[in-house]
Amino acid sequence: MTERAQAHPGDENPATEHPADEQLPAAPDPAVLRAHLDGRWAQARRSARELFADPRFAPPPIDADLATHRERVLDQLLLLVDAGATQGGFPSRYGGGDDLGGWITGFEMLGFGDLSLLVKVGVQFGLFAGAILHLGTERHHQAYLQDAINARLLGCFAMTETGHGSDVASVRTTATYHPGTREFDVHTPYEAARKDYIGNAGEHGRLAVVFAQLITEGESKGVHALLVPIRDEHGEPMPGVRLQDCGPKAGLNGVDNGRIWFDHVRVPRENLLDRYGEVDPDGTYRTPIASASRRFFTMLGTLVQGRISVGGAAGSATKLALTIAIRYGLVRRQFAPPGGAEIVVLDYLAHQRRLFPALARTYALHFAQAELVELLHETTPGPDARPDANGLPAEDPRRRQLEAHAAGLKAVGTWHATRTIQACREACGGAGYLSENRLPGLKADTDVFTTFEGDNTVLLQLLAKELLTGFAEHFGELDLLGTVRFVADQTVETVLERVGGRLLLQRLRDVGPSAGDEGSMLGHDWQLELFDWRARHLLETLARRLRAAAGGGDSTAAFAVFNAAQDHLLAAAQAHVDTLLLRAFLAGIEALPAGAERDLLDLLCDLFALSTIEADRGWVQEHGRLTAARSKAVVAAVNELCRRLRPHAATLVDAFGIPDQAIAAPIAQGAELARQQQLHDPGG
Amino acid sequence: MTERAQAHPGDENPATEHPADEQLPAAPDPAVLRAHLDGRWAQARRSARELFADPRFAPPPIDADLATHRERVLDQLLLLVDAGATQGGFPSRYGGGDDLGGWITGFEMLGFGDLSLLVKVGVQFGLFAGAILHLGTERHHQAYLQDAINARLLGCFAMTETGHGSDVASVRTTATYHPGTREFDVHTPYEAARKDYIGNAGEHGRLAVVFAQLITEGESKGVHALLVPIRDEHGEPMPGVRLQDCGPKAGLNGVDNGRIWFDHVRVPRENLLDRYGEVDPDGTYRTPIASASRRFFTMLGTLVQGRISVGGAAGSATKLALTIAIRYGLVRRQFAPPGGAEIVVLDYLAHQRRLFPALARTYALHFAQAELVELLHETTPGPDARPDANGLPAEDPRRRQLEAHAAGLKAVGTWHATRTIQACREACGGAGYLSENRLPGLKADTDVFTTFEGDNTVLLQLLAKELLTGFAEHFGELDLLGTVRFVADQTVETVLERVGGRLLLQRLRDVGPSAGDEGSMLGHDWQLELFDWRARHLLETLARRLRAAAGGGDSTAAFAVFNAAQDHLLAAAQAHVDTLLLRAFLAGIEALPAGAERDLLDLLCDLFALSTIEADRGWVQEHGRLTAARSKAVVAAVNELCRRLRPHAATLVDAFGIPDQAIAAPIAQGAELARQQQLHDPGG
Repeated sequence: MTERAQAHPGDENPATEHPADEQLPAAPDPAVLRAHLDGRWAQARRSARELFADPRFAPPPIDADLATHRERVLDQLLLLVDAGATQGGFPSRYGGGDDLGGWITGFEMLGFGDLSLLVKVGVQFGLFAGAILHLGTERHHQAYLQDAINARLLGCFAMTETGHGSDVASVRTTATYHPGTREFDVHTPYEAARKDYIGNAGEHGRLAVVFAQLITEGESKGVHALLVPIRDEHGEPMPGVRLQDCGPKAGLNGVDNGRIWFDHVRVPRENLLDRYGEVDPDGTYRTPIASASRRFFTMLGTLVQGRISVGGAAGSATKLALTIAIRYGLVRRQFAPPGGAEIVVLDYLAHQRRLFPALARTYALHFAQAELVELLHETTPGPDARPDANGLPAEDPRRRQLEAHAAGLKAVGTWHATRTIQACREACGGAGYLSENRLPGLKADTDVFTTFEGDNTVLLQLLAKELLTGFAEHFGELDLLGTVRFVADQTVETVLERVGGRLLLQRLRDVGPSAGDEGSMLGHDWQLELFDWRARHLLETLARRLRAAAGGGDSTAAFAVFNAAQDHLLAAAQAHVDTLLLRAFLAGIEALPAGAERDLLDLLCDLFALSTIEADRGWVQEHGRLTAARSKAVVAAVNELCRRLRPHAATLVDAFGIPDQAIAAPIAQGAELARQQQLHDPGG
Repeated sequence: MTERAQAHPGDENPATEHPADEQLPAAPDPAVLRAHLDGRWAQARRSARELFADPRFAPPPIDADLATHRERVLDQLLLLVDAGATQGGFPSRYGGGDDLGGWITGFEMLGFGDLSLLVKVGVQFGLFAGAILHLGTERHHQAYLQDAINARLLGCFAMTETGHGSDVASVRTTATYHPGTREFDVHTPYEAARKDYIGNAGEHGRLAVVFAQLITEGESKGVHALLVPIRDEHGEPMPGVRLQDCGPKAGLNGVDNGRIWFDHVRVPRENLLDRYGEVDPDGTYRTPIASASRRFFTMLGTLVQGRISVGGAAGSATKLALTIAIRYGLVRRQFAPPGGAEIVVLDYLAHQRRLFPALARTYALHFAQAELVELLHETTPGPDARPDANGLPAEDPRRRQLEAHAAGLKAVGTWHATRTIQACREACGGAGYLSENRLPGLKADTDVFTTFEGDNTVLLQLLAKELLTGFAEHFGELDLLGTVRFVADQTVETVLERVGGRLLLQRLRDVGPSAGDEGSMLGHDWQLELFDWRARHLLETLARRLRAAAGGGDSTAAFAVFNAAQDHLLAAAQAHVDTLLLRAFLAGIEALPAGAERDLLDLLCDLFALSTIEADRGWVQEHGRLTAARSKAVVAAVNELCRRLRPHAATLVDAFGIPDQAIAAPIAQGAELARQQQLHDPGG
């Protein structure tokens, strides 16, 4: 890797030379950075990297038809089973590895390959088997888990309906209990209640976890999940089940998404996944969670790993796109100043601005994702955990935070992926439009990440709601002024608490959070203080707006108040995620020993922080936290940071450690082309 | 259309009711708006609409393989020839219609159909035949034009090379004249000099317009174009020509892009397209334009219609995407406030903010595009125009402005298309990801628009350079202070001059450009004054930065100065385009008689202006032109305008007049689905 970095012809171009005094004291070693990024589940990452050496896991063929692609993906899925790569996240008693964190990390790494395979794996093991594990009880585990995690039984997670996607609590499919036969009657009452976009439903799935309104003794008990066979052993639809392929999609065409209709399909009582709600043979309903809505959200909460997985996959796709665009940008030259050599395109400020802030945010997301996976790993209850004596699920209290953060990071990370891959495509010009160079596939495959596993806009609102709830719990009883003052008092304490105290304290002493000169912008303390203040101020003012309107009014009026503040709500959630990202980035830096690699991450973190502030500097100025002069200085500092990071661009993408076989794009393996340009270009 | 608008169920939802006093006095009629938008070449638009009634021009099949798709597109191209739709832009003496404006408008309308067909048409008629018309002389016209515009001779425009895309003046292909045989030797000197991404080169093209460095008498004369046969009548490569298909792309797979290598291919002297440079039989070079660089840019200038065409096509694709997303947003419901009906998603502020500012900018671009086409129509020289006695091309002086504006509008319009189609895809959730709903194809097909026919970043720099040149020509001799004062004095005059003076004057009297209350934001005078000031200030300060550094220094230093200001340069160009857009929008409003339609456009123009200011309010505050309070008021005004435009969303997209057969997306013809939701949804 170091060899390759030195071989980048851009580094020999006089136009790209940087004065020696701006260089980091030593050349950062991408191998050191990579080891640091690999983190706790480094072994899972190494195993996945080895996988890509197998040509059967090469990137998707760019000209395969839908049927061939699906067949290939199914074959790959079965290869993963044989390699023991699909079982790790499940309990050892069912053949799993009791290692959720490693499993999620391995899933993330699949994002360097065919994303159809990743999604198919997510559907089969994360959603289908995961729902059986988390929503079912022992009899379901014993009956299905081993077959599910070894892909002997392919299944679906049938939640979304055509008419209800984001609002899944309102799905219209019904499961009506009949005590006479001790069966549920599963039914699609009208066209828009059909299950839609369901992975594995188009072709391969045989058993579906179906989410339906459970009706017993004439009463609806809210949404529950049941196991409903949809295909027999020959792949034919079961009686009463109608199946339809969703057909071609923008991407992910190796996954067979489909639609499902149920015409009074009967399944035994035992098919109800009854961890959070049971139906006795006589039809009596029993549940440890009285509120139907709470019960449903508790069920959903157990599925949080799907969202976390998508966030990780988006990160991998982003890293791959950046690796391609930056490597190409280092060999591609265009235009020469009079009498000079042609300029390496990555030396252009506009090119740097397209890619480097995105690279910095990708690092921030990486560290935040790693923290999230760790929290998931530590807080996920075992298969036997049951609601406690008070009728509440015995859960780690950090679980609520996990769910909120998973929602926020999934939204911010998948939008970042879409935008960054788009920027990379454009940065590669016509070459970026060719399928062989991977960027078209990456863009198309990840595009749906922003709207599946929770629409991003809805997820940010979920996070905002959780933040508001926390806010109300803490401050609901105080008068408004007291509230604001209390928050202000807590600030410094919070900052000191959460981010490696020692270093920060020292920096606070050196500079102080209110220092006004440009230099202090490159101190993370000032950045963090500003991030925190922004998130807090947005939340406080949001709470005030909503609270002022909460008293009285009908539902129409209440909606109008909420709706008028919707942009505010989304901004508050976004700002909160930004603070998470900055904290995670800083913690990631603190955990690295002093040296060139840490200095480099420090620079990159400055770029993340300042480019984030730059993008929102309209708002920050409106709220009196940046003077006009200082706001301009932020813009200048972003330019300057791009310039200083330029010599390290190759190192920063090499550190992602994406195997060459997975990158595959000819333009990212452009040593050959570069050599030809160098040796034979009469103007070069 | 009006019927459909009334049938939108959202309009009956209590949550969407707007107080009567905010409604426009009468319901705007989409037919009136459409007639206005159709403009000067309404007949061309009507003909194109009729075309889409022919099922052979239905949207592209979503599951066609590459070969089938290409065959279909070629068939459609030949159908267009039979329909007389390809010849209009050419001189009547060669079977054309002498109607460039109508032809370009018809091309724009093809953007509602398969964009592969549009691009194939652009390659064959715009680029290939256009180059023969504009760069060739009578013998070329007589020999080739009739066959070219009737698609009996399919051809290529072989300019871009793998190693040189944006910097086309530096292509490395050589055309060396040999007086002995009176032939040119066309040669690809090394791998990266191969022609790349060339439309029609993959399969169908037989003759190529090849751009190469012309060498005669041992001297290079810069880039010229020659006609080089690349395939024989049987489709086999000509001797010395190597051809390769570019393979699958992100989109536009109905177009056969390919690569071309020349191994000392000989063509007769007469094959040089010699309008701007001739080679005598003995090898003597003659040209009316002494400077090689000026000559080349003059040649390029004649090809400006390609850029204008792409801008128009991007506009059509954007309109189609917005039509789909807005119609779906009017039937799709999700979430209900307690006790209320489910909310139509277009009633959510976040949904409106995604789509309405984009809709407003689409209108602005429509009016600006129409102006540009008109200017192109009026300034394009006939086929016999020759350089004048001074050796300069006898051109309309407005031509220079045309080229600069075409560059800027192409960049801004194609980026807008990419972003808007992406936003529409996300706004439609999972349904937007299905190929049958058109958005995936629209996104993928238009994606390359931002980097072909001139990379957008390069085009904005071209515009900035032209603006700087104009600036220097006017002010180069004055001292800096005088310059600034002179500009300031000119401002009001400029404003009054360019925009329908009467109305504006009255408004200036009513409000005055410096009025500080929120209400005045909805006056276009204040908006225009701010837009103008922003563009001017960015240009002035840019000129100062570059001028300060212009004195001395080597090429490395000069590049560093330019590069440090590159973001500033791009911002200046972008701001200039914004002023063009606002002016065009205002002129479009002025041309409409008073009434509900004009009032509606007034509102929409307010949204365009204020959302543009909102997006750049960080910069505007930095430069002291918006106080914090007023900046916040801009944000609030955008929200309020979204709310006020909501009842007219259907009207505004109906006015685009896209035939239902062209829209095709099931979700945009969702009356059926909506009815099912209405009638059968127990919660609805």
